[in-house]
Order: sequence, then C-alpha cells, then structure tokens
Amino acid sequence: MITLDDIHSTADIKRLDLAQLESLATPIRDALLEKLSHHGGHVGPNLGMVELTLALHYVLDLPTDKIVYDVSHQSYVHKMLTGRMEAFTDPKQYDSVTGFSNPAESDTDMFTIGHTSTGVSLAGGLATARNLRGENYRIAVIVGDGSLSGGEAFEGLDHAATLKGNFIVIVNDNQMSIAENHGGIYDNLQLLRETDGQAPCNLFKAMGFDYRYVAYGNDLSTLVKVLEDVKDTDRPIVLHVNTQKGKGYAPAEAERERFHFSAPFDRRSGARMQTPNALTYSEITASYLMQMIAEDPTVTVITAGTPGAIDFGPERRATAGSQFIDVGIAEQEAVALASGIAKGGGKPYFGVVSSFLQRAYDQLSQDLAINNSPAVIGIYYGSVFGMNDVTHLGWFDIALISNIPNIVYLAPTCLEEHLAMLDWAMKQNRYPVALRLPGGTLKETGRKYPADYSDLNAYMVGHRGDKVALIGAGTFYSLAEEAAAKLKESGIDATVINPRFLSGLDTQLLDELTLDHTVVATLEDGVLDGGFGEKIARYYGASDMKVLCYGLKKEFVDRYRVSELLETNRLTAPQIAADILKLVK
Amino acid sequence: MITLDDIHSTADIKRLDLAQLESLATPIRDALLEKLSHHGGHVGPNLGMVELTLALHYVLDLPTDKIVYDVSHQSYVHKMLTGRMEAFTDPKQYDSVTGFSNPAESDTDMFTIGHTSTGVSLAGGLATARNLRGENYRIAVIVGDGSLSGGEAFEGLDHAATLKGNFIVIVNDNQMSIAENHGGIYDNLQLLRETDGQAPCNLFKAMGFDYRYVAYGNDLSTLVKVLEDVKDTDRPIVLHVNTQKGKGYAPAEAERERFHFSAPFDRRSGARMQTPNALTYSEITASYLMQMIAEDPTVTVITAGTPGAIDFGPERRATAGSQFIDVGIAEQEAVALASGIAKGGGKPYFGVVSSFLQRAYDQLSQDLAINNSPAVIGIYYGSVFGMNDVTHLGWFDIALISNIPNIVYLAPTCLEEHLAMLDWAMKQNRYPVALRLPGGTLKETGRKYPADYSDLNAYMVGHRGDKVALIGAGTFYSLAEEAAAKLKESGIDATVINPRFLSGLDTQLLDELTLDHTVVATLEDGVLDGGFGEKIARYYGASDMKVLCYGLKKEFVDRYRVSELLETNRLTAPQIAADILKLVK
Repeated sequence: MITLDDIHSTADIKRLDLAQLESLATPIRDALLEKLSHHGGHVGPNLGMVELTLALHYVLDLPTDKIVYDVSHQSYVHKMLTGRMEAFTDPKQYDSVTGFSNPAESDTDMFTIGHTSTGVSLAGGLATARNLRGENYRIAVIVGDGSLSGGEAFEGLDHAATLKGNFIVIVNDNQMSIAENHGGIYDNLQLLRETDGQAPCNLFKAMGFDYRYVAYGNDLSTLVKVLEDVKDTDRPIVLHVNTQKGKGYAPAEAERERFHFSAPFDRRSGARMQTPNALTYSEITASYLMQMIAEDPTVTVITAGTPGAIDFGPERRATAGSQFIDVGIAEQEAVALASGIAKGGGKPYFGVVSSFLQRAYDQLSQDLAINNSPAVIGIYYGSVFGMNDVTHLGWFDIALISNIPNIVYLAPTCLEEHLAMLDWAMKQNRYPVALRLPGGTLKETGRKYPADYSDLNAYMVGHRGDKVALIGAGTFYSLAEEAAAKLKESGIDATVINPRFLSGLDTQLLDELTLDHTVVATLEDGVLDGGFGEKIARYYGASDMKVLCYGLKKEFVDRYRVSELLETNRLTAPQIAADILKLVK
Repeated sequence: MITLDDIHSTADIKRLDLAQLESLATPIRDALLEKLSHHGGHVGPNLGMVELTLALHYVLDLPTDKIVYDVSHQSYVHKMLTGRMEAFTDPKQYDSVTGFSNPAESDTDMFTIGHTSTGVSLAGGLATARNLRGENYRIAVIVGDGSLSGGEAFEGLDHAATLKGNFIVIVNDNQMSIAENHGGIYDNLQLLRETDGQAPCNLFKAMGFDYRYVAYGNDLSTLVKVLEDVKDTDRPIVLHVNTQKGKGYAPAEAERERFHFSAPFDRRSGARMQTPNALTYSEITASYLMQMIAEDPTVTVITAGTPGAIDFGPERRATAGSQFIDVGIAEQEAVALASGIAKGGGKPYFGVVSSFLQRAYDQLSQDLAINNSPAVIGIYYGSVFGMNDVTHLGWFDIALISNIPNIVYLAPTCLEEHLAMLDWAMKQNRYPVALRLPGGTLKETGRKYPADYSDLNAYMVGHRGDKVALIGAGTFYSLAEEAAAKLKESGIDATVINPRFLSGLDTQLLDELTLDHTVVATLEDGVLDGGFGEKIARYYGASDMKVLCYGLKKEFVDRYRVSELLETNRLTAPQIAADILKLVK
C-alpha cells in the first residue's frame, strides 16, 4: 500500500496506477486537516483541490510542464507532491513552507503569488516565452471561480485566448469566492453547470477559448481521463471543473465561508480553538457602520470580496441588504463605484485590506481623487501588526495613498479617535477620505477627540515639551509616547505630536517647533520611502532642525516576527531614545 | 432651417423633429473637422459618434437623465449640444473646453474622465446612489469596443449586470481601439456583428445583460427608434452599436489609427500640417528595439493598446511579428505578462505612458517586483514636458515606482545615456528595471556613458566643485547644470550630480559631500511628495547639510503651460540659484 511517505517528488506520483493514486486522497486530506486544525491556513480551497492536484501531477510531466496556481493558497497538495510532504506530516516542519507557491522552495513553483487573479497573466507570459524560444512544454493554470471577478484575470484570459500552442486554463469552480460570488458572470457559470457545459451562451467560448466541462471535479478517474484528452491541446482551452470547497470534511462543506481560511480549530467539531476577541477595530467599525446604515438609507458599505476582513459576516450582510455591496474581488470597481455613489448623493464606505488596495491606485487617482468624490476608504491591516506574508504586507499604503492629491488620509491612534474620524469622514461631503484603522490590539485611551477634522493637516500636540519633538503617526503614536518616557529618564521633556493626517503637513506647528526644538523624530507604521516622515524631512531640509525618520526599510520580507522586524528597523522606544540623545548632546 | 447657432442646450435638441435632427449631423461634422484640423484632437472617435450623441440627447431627458462617456475623448458632440457650441464654432473659443468630460463646464458632464475603461464603474455608482435614494432617472454609459479590454471595464460590467433598475450600456463598436483590437473577446464582437446580434454565444449575455444589436450605428432614425425602445428598461442592457470610426471624412475613414488623435492637419488632404520630427526618444528607442528584435528571437516588445506612443506603427509591428504584443488596453496584463516572459527565459520590454502605468501598481509590486523578474518597463511622457491634461499628468511615476522594493528605476539625462541604460537593462538578467525616457526635446550631448549599471545606486558626478551640490535627476539634470552656471556668476563652483537611479541612494557619495558641501539641492521632474528628493532629505535629516528639494507640488493641474508651472514651482535656474545663495551666505 502506498503511503504519503512514499511520495518524495512528482515522479513518484507518475509511477502509480490509478487505484494507488486514488488511495492517496484520504491520507492527503487527513494530513491537511491535521496540520490545518493545529496550524491554521486555507482549509476549504485545499480540501477541494486534492483530486485535481493529483490528476494534474499524474498526467502532466513536471517540472518540464508548468503549473501556475492563481492566488496559490490552494497549492498545499501541490507542495505535498513536490518534495515538501514533511511540511504537512511533521508538526515540527509545519512552518518550513509558506502558504503560497514559492520558487525558493521548489522548481515546480513558478512564481511567488498571493494576490488573486494574476495566474492566467503570469502563465501567459510563460507560454509566450516558450513560443519565442521554440520550446514545447505544457502549461496549466488553475484559477478559482471567485478570482474570475478580478480585472487582471479578465485581461489575462482575453489575451491568453490569442496565444499559440498549449495552454490549459482550469477554472476550479467551487461556487464560492471567500464568501459567496457576486457578479453577472456567475449566472453563466451556473448555467454551464446546470447544462453540463452545453449551454450555447458560454463566457469562455465568448472570450475565444475551447471549452470542456467536468461535472465531477472531485472524481479522480474522471479528471485523469479528461486531462489525458486535453493535455496536448495546441490552443488555449478552458477546463471548467466543478469541485466542492471543503470536500471530505463535513464542517468545511457546511460552513464554506468560515473554512476558506481558518485559525486553528477543533478537528472533531470544527469549532474555533479560541473565540475571536469581539473587540477589534474592524468589529467596532462594522458595528458603527451598521448603525449608520440603519439611520441613513444612502449609506453603503462596499467590499471587494473580503466581507470577513471588515467583519461583515452573513448576518450583518443580510441586515444591511442593498446597503451592503460585494463587487467581487474587484478593488478597481469598488473605488470607482464608491466615487460614483458619492457623486450621485450616496455615502459610500469601501473597507479594504491595505495590500489589496494596491490593485486600485489608478482608480484612487482618476476615479476618486481627480473627481474629489467624498467617499470613504477604510484601510485594514495597514500596519506592521497586520499580515506577514510577503504578498500581503500592509506597509505600502502610506506611500500609495498619501502622494495622490486631494485625498485626505487620516491615521487614528486609538479607538476613540478612530470612531471620531470615521464619523466625521462619513458625514462630511467635501473630500475623498482614507482612514487607516490602527494596527495591533485594540487600544482604548478614554480620551476625548474632536468631532471635526475639516481643518486639514492640523496636527494635535499630545504633550508640549521642548528640545525634542516626536511625531508618531497612527499606531506608532504610542511608540512616540514610549520613546518620550524613555527620554524623560535622561531629563528630556519631549513634545509628543499626533499628526492625524498622513497626507499633509501642519507647517505652522512645524515652524513653531523650530523656536525651541532642535530634533524632530517621525514615527510611522509603514515603509519610509515615499512615506510620511520624508515629507517632514523635506520641509525642514533647509533649517537647522535635525530630523530622524523611523519606519520600515523598503524591502520585501516574508513571515517576519514583529518584534524582530521592529528591532531591526530601530523601532523600539530605547533605540529611538538612544538615537535622539546622541543628537541632543 | 436649423443651424448650430440654434443649439444652446440639450433642450433645443428635444424640440426638433427627426428631419431637423438629422440635418444637424452635417454642420456638426463640419464644425468638428474645422476645429480639429486647426486645433488637433480626437478626430475619428467623435466623427463616429455624431448620430449616437444626437440620438441620446433626443431620447433621454438631460440633465435629469445621465450620460457617462468612458474615456470621454468622444464627448465633443455632447459638449456641442450642452451649451458649449462656441468652443467648436468660434476659433477664439477653441480652448474654452477641455478634451474630456468636465463637471466644471456643465452639469451634464458627470465626471472628469480621461483614462479608459472607467465609465461603467462610475455610472454603476450613479445607479447605486439613485436606487438608494429612491430616485428614478435613466443612466446611459458609452464605452468603446477597445475600452472593453481593460480590467476595470470588465469589473464594472460584471457588477453592473447585477444592478437594479435602468442601466443602459452602449458599446460603441467601431472595430478599433487606438489601433486595431487585440484579445479573445473581439472574435465574439465580430461574430455578433456578422450575425446581426443573433449568435447564441454572446459575451454580454454571458455577463448577465439583456442585449440588443444595432447594425447601423450612424443612422440616426434607427438609433432614435432603438433608444426609444430600450430607454425605459428596468434592468441592465447592453446596446451594441456598430459605428464607423472617422465617419464622414474620407481620410479618417481610411487611416483610422492615425486619425484616432491627430495634431492639426490639412482638411482637404488629411496630411499632417508638419512632418513629425523623426528624432524623438521614443522613435530612437523603437529603432533600437527593432534591432534587438532582429538579433534576439526572445526579445518581445509589449504595448497596452498604445503602439503609437512607443512609435511602433503598422510597419514596425508587421516586421516584429510575434515579437510585438499588443495586449489591449490592459496594463495589468502587460506587466504580469512581462514578468512571466522573463521567468520563462524571454526578454520583455513593456513601453507605457507614465499616467497609464498607474493602472498596474499592484502588478509592478506583486507580479514583477516580488518575483524579481528581469523585465524592462519603459516609461513614456514621465515628465512635466509630457501630456498636460489633468487626467494624463506624467508626474506621479517616481512616487509610484521608486517606492516598490526590488525595482531599479533609471533616469537617463540625454540620448546617449538613455541608450546605454536601455541596452544594459535589456541585456541584464537580475533586476526588474524601469527606465524613464527623458522629457522634452531630444538632447544629444555627445558624451560617452558607461555600459554597465549593475553597481546599483552609484551616482555620477558630472562636475566636482564644493559648498553646493546639485543633484539633477533625468530631464532636470540640465536644469542642475543651468543652476550651477548661475551660481558660478556668484562665485560658487557647485558640484553637479547625475543620480541615474531614482530608486536608491548613493550613500557613500552623499557622505563624502558632507566634507566640503553645506547645501544639497535635488531637482526632479515629478511631484515632490513620495519622490526622489525626499529620500535625500531624509538621509541628511540628522546631519548639518541643508537640503532643498525641487520638483512639483502635489496637486492636479489641468492644461498647464510648462513655463508657468516651472516658474510657480521655482523650477528655473535663477530661482534655484537665488534660493541656494540665501543658504550659502
């Protein structure tokens, strides 16, 4: 009998007969569940992909042939079959692989991918290079039905349909995005499923692809047979495979949204190991927004396929009704839609994960900022305390947003200030406002904050001292306070400033500081390059003021430890105080 | 008889009978041609839209009903019908309107739009607001067939198909983008045209829209009839209208690419008023790339629907064959494709207009930079000397690109350096390289430049003086030289530095400067916020060096005069020298 211990590389898969191959599905699922219940990760997507991954490795010839996984959070089984089995069977090695495809781990991983809807484009590039070089390998790209809603996926498909040679797009249709799907195309996918792929009105054919439907996408022998049929296609084909998200694990089959990604859970019951702390910024924000929705019928909350990230679970979505809009994984649409809603007299709030907002730079600039539409963009996980995969870093949004004219970018320092700023943002009608939810655990200060932020770029002086001023933005305001406390030990009564605005300077205050301060330190929870502190440094450039900018170095890091990263970037209170003391003395 | 002088607002259109309405088409075309032949502008798109615009204004009730024009370069006739006729009939008033829709000009212009593929999303926002507010007006959005290739258009359509209530998407199918269309969807559009809209495989139906085809999109009575039929639809519909680009003007009907946008031309012959100067950076770049294509079969030049902007006209495209790829108006795809090509062993060059690259921030970060793919991105019009419409400003790319880790962003100062850098970029295999073509007229210095730029962030000292250092990036290196000449008059022998790299600091050189310099001025052809100079200011923040950063203020300006803008931003040599002298003395 074949066990997982026998599988060291994709070649070991190809040696098996079909029955042996089928016998692997159960131990693979078992290992996945064992790891994920203890470690957390993407549960549903991987359980649904067991048979499809086995079939692909069985039929294709890796590493000559290439498989690209869109988003690649569904590539766990691929990792198990390509020399990384122990990362799933040996608890000590659970962290030896990332949660996404990673060329540093294996030559069968083509790209580091973590954002949605990029796979077809990247794989299309491989096909183009292959053709230019006169090579001849097969290329398969797996893209989920949810990912089809992203504009890059469309652009990728539209171009890929014109490619010469072998190109197999496998649409892994599990009838779910992270949550349910939204968008006109999903009716067509349903029609295709209901007609066993026979409906003449076919999105993929309309885009120029050959097409084949597989109703039983968790049936290994069917998959092997179909893949054998199409593997040598000499033109682009879509293989539309109907799979079951969470397949083989009852709780994940039942609660598909919750098990898309799960923190550690009890394997028997499916229950979370710890109850999530109800008091988070996003939870309280969602609660405030629900109240706004109830009070004002023109208030709309928008998500781009990540309702969970903004704590709009099924219940809130049902209550909000048409005042909650999920546009699909389509941040471009979300920003432009918000601008249009504001122009039409509605009051839109688009809540978005920092890293994913990167997909909408031009929409922030053109659709929103140039039109000066008073929409509100709530930025989640925009912090070193956010997600730590290299593909999900939440550090670049200050540089992304604050250098676009017209957008007011606010950085609250605690819950009370966050709610005050949010309320102002939602009720004003003059500016596009971006609001950066603080990172880390909820911080309640009990302080009272102003209700009005229309005096743009007016910083708030938390404590007035002299000689040294610490300007701590957002989450790092408390770091400024800590550094000030450290300086106090050396007899320096530092001024502590909450800039509140990431998008502009309080030049009056900065000028005042020159009278009795010699050092200004800026602290921001983001990358230094293009960020907040550099603007202060530029402003003081021709003066005698010494400026120290604290923030993150411009680099990609993967799965960092917060404490190490902070230390490396001299983002601890003792380090900051020590640097400043050198300048003061 | 009705003349253009009788049309002061859309209400004047609605008073006409159909024959009177039809009689307007000829004088409108005549006025368009008269203005455009003298003034330049989008010729083909507007000639093709005369009847459709008349019909829309006749059938809909503006300003209650709303029309959104995607890209809006085809909204000239709309402007003529909404109180701005003189801007097209009175040469003195030609410049009284912008070339795009503009709410500041008329309440019938809903948004300032200049980028492609945004219209459906913005109009969808209006529809959402309308529904939330319980209002009831009609909404039409006109989107060209070329614009459908952009991801935001897809996202907009996918979501719009789920909207409640009236929503009319008019696909203005003139069988052209700026140049010919590329992408799988265009076969379906052709099929629909060939079957008079009857083919069962229908992209728009597959996306969830009702659908109607209009074969004679330049026939006013047909258009009026169809619009009357569908104007009160209570759900989203696509009206697929077959129009002729350049309709009614033989040279524009024949040369559709050249007359998409044209500089002033001789109305009788269609010939350009002046022969374009053959010696431009883009022309010479194209010529170099053609040579590379001939020498190396893996070299690929990519455009996202703007081959003309990179001087790849029909002849070069034909010669390049499969080594030239037009992905449609799809910058996301272009960047990801380039990354995939590089990963697969090809050598991609993606040439893109600065402002349009904004659509691909996330792809630069995720698809390209994280994967460290050695693709080359050539940035065109990234300069104050580039395009001056508010929607096309080429000033934001330094902040956009240079703050992303791993990307090497080079700024050549003249032709010789540009070619040296380009050649290095194309032949190296280690870095994603962005290359900013200099702005303004071609500058040949006759100087020799190094062939190797792999010593990252090594600045070049053009002249070694003391006290003052001028660091002039790219196009503004010559401004640094001019300012140095000015300073010379006051007895200061300033150091002049060409940083070459926008994405990093030469810290060794910067440290050396502190020995015998007291002032450093940075000069960049871009917005200051998030730009190059701020990084220098940050680096010197804790030192005694005085830093002055020169560049553009963070703001949106429309149709500026370069000389005024430079003066306002103190970007002239005398101003810079005067500022510096104040600091030195």
